[in-house]
Amino acid sequence: MDSLFLGECLAVLTRTPATLDAMLRGLPEQWTAATEGPATWSPYAVIGHLIHGEKTDWMPRVMIILEHGPDRPFEPFDREAQFCDSQGKPISELLDEFSKRRRDNLARLRSLDLQEAQLELAGTHPGLGRVTLRQLLSAWTAHDLAHILQVSRVMAKRLKEEVGPWAEYLSVMR
Amino acid sequence: MDSLFLGECLAVLTRTPATLDAMLRGLPEQWTAATEGPATWSPYAVIGHLIHGEKTDWMPRVMIILEHGPDRPFEPFDREAQFCDSQGKPISELLDEFSKRRRDNLARLRSLDLQEAQLELAGTHPGLGRVTLRQLLSAWTAHDLAHILQVSRVMAKRLKEEVGPWAEYLSVMR
Repeated sequence: MDSLFLGECLAVLTRTPATLDAMLRGLPEQWTAATEGPATWSPYAVIGHLIHGEKTDWMPRVMIILEHGPDRPFEPFDREAQFCDSQGKPISELLDEFSKRRRDNLARLRSLDLQEAQLELAGTHPGLGRVTLRQLLSAWTAHDLAHILQVSRVMAKRLKEEVGPWAEYLSVMR
Repeated sequence: MDSLFLGECLAVLTRTPATLDAMLRGLPEQWTAATEGPATWSPYAVIGHLIHGEKTDWMPRVMIILEHGPDRPFEPFDREAQFCDSQGKPISELLDEFSKRRRDNLARLRSLDLQEAQLELAGTHPGLGRVTLRQLLSAWTAHDLAHILQVSRVMAKRLKEEVGPWAEYLSVMR
């Protein structure tokens, strides 16, 4: 990617709440609560996970890199927190919260007016070791897309038996 | 799925245009033209393919089942048609066209007021053989989700190098 890197990440990060909102708001619970089996996530759980990421993962880590550099490792991220935090809330409320937290975080990110050289600043990930700010922003963006992918996959697989012979043409069913 | 089957399919089919619109409209061309390599599809190509499906695949096949049953095989679907049909059009125009055609097709589908028993009516797919109306409607729905999945995957993979060590946590990159 070229020097427009940050703008390209922002273009995706900005769109994710509306994408998931369009997909999931008002959708019957048979869809939003569907999983791929025991210990796998429903679309509902994914939104809770994304909210937790906005609260504790991405922007807090940006700030740790800028304020402390690699000397202060990031807090480990709790990948299961949504199962406590979101429990019982309607998905419409979670979508609203994700949208608001993302908007606030991106406003803060933009206000930092990051320069190209700052993207090479490093931090310390508790599991992955040395990472740069550029990699963190890329991972945030790819992580959004990976979860849109997951939501689509979980929902599609619910139709595995229903599609009958068409399963042969739908690689998602394999 | 229960007797609410048709409603559940409609809930997804109705949302797909807005989902892809939220993801792709106004997105830099670096994203919408990205592919997974030679002979793979960009998000732009996917929208063209979905338009062609609205024109020649799903609803026309519903009507063939209802009007002719299994005696008249479906027309084969051209999976590459979008490379001629859509060429040169801005993606905003394709998103508008997909949205309009889908809306018209779903209005027509609703107006058929299909009854449970009709969902078991059969048609003949040129490649897959005997299929039911229920399977056709399921496949239409799963096909939408499979292409949202594909768009997310193509876009995520563009960041494969950029995410650095995070690739380990992102199964989409493998």
